[in-house]
Amino acid sequence: DLPLAFILGPCVIESRDHALKTARFLAELGERRGIPLIYKSSFDKANRTSANSFRGIGMDEALRIFEAVKAETGLAVTTDVHEREQCAAVAEVVDILQIPAFLSRQTDLLVAAAETGRVVNVKKGQFLAPWDMKNVAKKLDSAGASGVLLTERGTSFGYNTLVVDMRGLPIMAESGKPVIFDATHSVQQPGGRGDSSGGERQYAPVLARAAVAVGVAGVFIETHEDPDNAPSDGANMIPLTEIDGLVAELMALDAIAKGRGSGR
Amino acid sequence: DLPLAFILGPCVIESRDHALKTARFLAELGERRGIPLIYKSSFDKANRTSANSFRGIGMDEALRIFEAVKAETGLAVTTDVHEREQCAAVAEVVDILQIPAFLSRQTDLLVAAAETGRVVNVKKGQFLAPWDMKNVAKKLDSAGASGVLLTERGTSFGYNTLVVDMRGLPIMAESGKPVIFDATHSVQQPGGRGDSSGGERQYAPVLARAAVAVGVAGVFIETHEDPDNAPSDGANMIPLTEIDGLVAELMALDAIAKGRGSGR
Amino acid sequence: DLPLAFILGPCVIESRDHALKTARFLAELGERRGIPLIYKSSFDKANRTSANSFRGIGMDEALRIFEAVKAETGLAVTTDVHEREQCAAVAEVVDILQIPAFLSRQTDLLVAAAETGRVVNVKKGQFLAPWDMKNVAKKLDSAGASGVLLTERGTSFGYNTLVVDMRGLPIMAESGKPVIFDATHSVQQPGGRGDSSGGERQYAPVLARAAVAVGVAGVFIETHEDPDNAPSDGANMIPLTEIDGLVAELMALDAIAKGRGSGR
Amino acid sequence: DLPLAFILGPCVIESRDHALKTARFLAELGERRGIPLIYKSSFDKANRTSANSFRGIGMDEALRIFEAVKAETGLAVTTDVHEREQCAAVAEVVDILQIPAFLSRQTDLLVAAAETGRVVNVKKGQFLAPWDMKNVAKKLDSAGASGVLLTERGTSFGYNTLVVDMRGLPIMAESGKPVIFDATHSVQQPGGRGDSSGGERQYAPVLARAAVAVGVAGVFIETHEDPDNAPSDGANMIPLTEIDGLVAELMALDAIAKGRGSGR
Repeated sequence: DLPLAFILGPCVIESRDHALKTARFLAELGERRGIPLIYKSSFDKANRTSANSFRGIGMDEALRIFEAVKAETGLAVTTDVHEREQCAAVAEVVDILQIPAFLSRQTDLLVAAAETGRVVNVKKGQFLAPWDMKNVAKKLDSAGASGVLLTERGTSFGYNTLVVDMRGLPIMAESGKPVIFDATHSVQQPGGRGDSSGGERQYAPVLARAAVAVGVAGVFIETHEDPDNAPSDGANMIPLTEIDGLVAELMALDAIAKGRGSGR
Repeated sequence: DLPLAFILGPCVIESRDHALKTARFLAELGERRGIPLIYKSSFDKANRTSANSFRGIGMDEALRIFEAVKAETGLAVTTDVHEREQCAAVAEVVDILQIPAFLSRQTDLLVAAAETGRVVNVKKGQFLAPWDMKNVAKKLDSAGASGVLLTERGTSFGYNTLVVDMRGLPIMAESGKPVIFDATHSVQQPGGRGDSSGGERQYAPVLARAAVAVGVAGVFIETHEDPDNAPSDGANMIPLTEIDGLVAELMALDAIAKGRGSGR
Repeated sequence: DLPLAFILGPCVIESRDHALKTARFLAELGERRGIPLIYKSSFDKANRTSANSFRGIGMDEALRIFEAVKAETGLAVTTDVHEREQCAAVAEVVDILQIPAFLSRQTDLLVAAAETGRVVNVKKGQFLAPWDMKNVAKKLDSAGASGVLLTERGTSFGYNTLVVDMRGLPIMAESGKPVIFDATHSVQQPGGRGDSSGGERQYAPVLARAAVAVGVAGVFIETHEDPDNAPSDGANMIPLTEIDGLVAELMALDAIAKGRGSGR
Repeated sequence: DLPLAFILGPCVIESRDHALKTARFLAELGERRGIPLIYKSSFDKANRTSANSFRGIGMDEALRIFEAVKAETGLAVTTDVHEREQCAAVAEVVDILQIPAFLSRQTDLLVAAAETGRVVNVKKGQFLAPWDMKNVAKKLDSAGASGVLLTERGTSFGYNTLVVDMRGLPIMAESGKPVIFDATHSVQQPGGRGDSSGGERQYAPVLARAAVAVGVAGVFIETHEDPDNAPSDGANMIPLTEIDGLVAELMALDAIAKGRGSGR
């Protein structure tokens, strides 16, 4: 029953300047609010709907930027890995290795991530039931992961639509692992725009409130100063200016959910 | 942004004594907590999985019991109607007419309920999208309903399973009608036991917390002093002894959700 | 392993002339092809998406038209009933009483239909699993139905979408009842146009071919000389001019499926 | 409208002897029936539910076995690749590179497979809509694939369940690519046994018949002389002794579906 942690950042690293500016903003917010905060950004969008979409700046440049973010803001950082070979290099800089949902069943990738000695955060595949994640956690444990996080980010529901089953949060927690709720990917509409994925940004705070009231270890929210012009996932990211209010509301709900509220 | 209302009671009327005893218990709780509380119970289970299941005590006897509940406790009462012909008689006693989810598209039943002049509470069909309910509300409005409530109780998700899409709550609220969340039917497993429906009682408070944090006008929770031996829906009803703690927690979440909390 | 039966007709009775003209067309086709053929049309659309949609011509006028269709063409006829009270009157004229999918769990309606002594054809609810239909069949059997047909018409799959699980056909057949496949309602998009249901007519023959190859007792196809201008369900009805070719193809697949083909 | 092709073989390579024995059996069958036949087997099960499940014999040994199968039977062969690095080596021996469903959106793997100059067969992700596959095909085309096949193997439907939407077959064919139907993985119950995936073998022929009647370029069926004792996917593989009868029936349906039948 630790206080709610926040994994925040822009979907993709756009440039050193953009990353540092966003990280500074979030670090200030985190300090002021007194919350555990991890900075998240991707260096490669390896499974875009279309081959013509922006892929990212590449791993080596990204790692230098993560070093700078850590040095300047003191924030822990996390990013996603897509291939076995990336794990060791990424783990030299990044505190938490994230496994993408589509790859949540790829044993070799899970093992390579676990063997780095870093904490591994696995997104639950859109095709998995909450109780399936205990097998994923076991794969990581038996490969020696120093820590495992399980993240809910929606389940396939008909075509081009995800639904979040809030029962999945306590079910995943039965594994003994901290459960994170990814509010922005949960409102994605995969492939929903024909050549790219759509999203319904307005429901990310709705689902975040619900998940925190149920009880989670942390929330994952992608944020950007101008989502409509972001190179990736703009449709579901939350504007940076709205993060502070959302954090405050989630903290209040978390206090109730974890029994430190005045309601009893 | 009125305070959270509660619709509470046993799934089905078992006897005059049982109804009165439960109603007295709930009335005391409601008064002590200062909450709007409506007593709910069914007189007929018209769509049981199997023809051999308990059907109920019948409408006439039920209406006498509702009169007694109202006279003795002062609670408003609600029950579900299944056929056009029942509406007028039921409306003489019952304050809110409830339309079952399977029947949420039956125009004649909706019109007959609306024409009684009572408030009508429609459960969203398991086969409907949240945005489909605006057409249901329009059918009721144009038939002169004095008030309309829309209740979420889960959506078909694969076989014998329901899922609650929390985005549906604000979507239904766009109709301008108060939205109720039915926590106990949302955890039903329709037909899940072969000859009867199963349920996962332990997730009803989970979903109730989520819905209230998102923001709803009321919650609907079926409750019984001994759910495992109840004649209907025992698998998903909440024990009467747990209602008070749940009400307190939901009130605290509601205060945050409606902006009267201390979190901002 | 009787040859494939066909239930054909316009979604709704538009007028005596229209019904007779369509019935004559279908009777000629049925005789020429040597197929069992039942004429279907509805007298009331009791669960339209919107209250403003066309409801139908009413039961009494419809029954006179069914009498004329039977007298003039010799076809058996079927229509759907929505309320207990309709069953006896409809059964005086109509050979098969059809229970709508939304009402497939309403015990009183099923019993009233069974007690007429006519064959009852129940559409599987969009919210039911194939194995749930054995309980529906038992309700009808124990009420003395002279015959029971079970019809597949799609299952809820996300929002405003149906999917047909072809495994459901043999699963429903385990009940011992003949299984019908409703090709045109299976391609409905319930509520998909906001104020009315959409449909994808082009996939009705696709699904009919699949179902017949799996093996069914009959297919149900709504047809109209001008679907785009029909008062109901135009989006999924098949043009009358395409019925003959589809019947021929389905007969050929049925012969293979039922082992009378040359493929073995 | 070429005659139906068959991709057949045991889920996983168990040994050189087992592979050759199965391939000889299938080659004889293919020649006798006059059908295009490709031999399929996996060398690595990279995404097993549990880390304790059988993984496979490894790539190098597998490639020597595929060489032997080709040399001795003359069959074309196919297998699945899981990492970019495997593509070039596998393509030296194997005629068609298969991309697993979970990896169907991994751009780098698709590109590496396409660049080998071999035909690439992509299984549609359980989380994708049929129309999403046109973007996958474009990724392969723009990377220079010499040929692209798209395979349906079911879509997520609730938890631990897949459903096949037969409309997806013509929708995928609109891409201009041949569409294959994978009958045995479509009846998998992913994670359905807790520590492993279940399956319902009895419905694989049901779905194969449906898909062939709709019209496909080929069917994919995993087969084994003793499925109940197979090291992988035993629950959904078809016994080798039943393949010949199924092939005959599918050929007869294919002839009707492709207009060479006598039904018109």
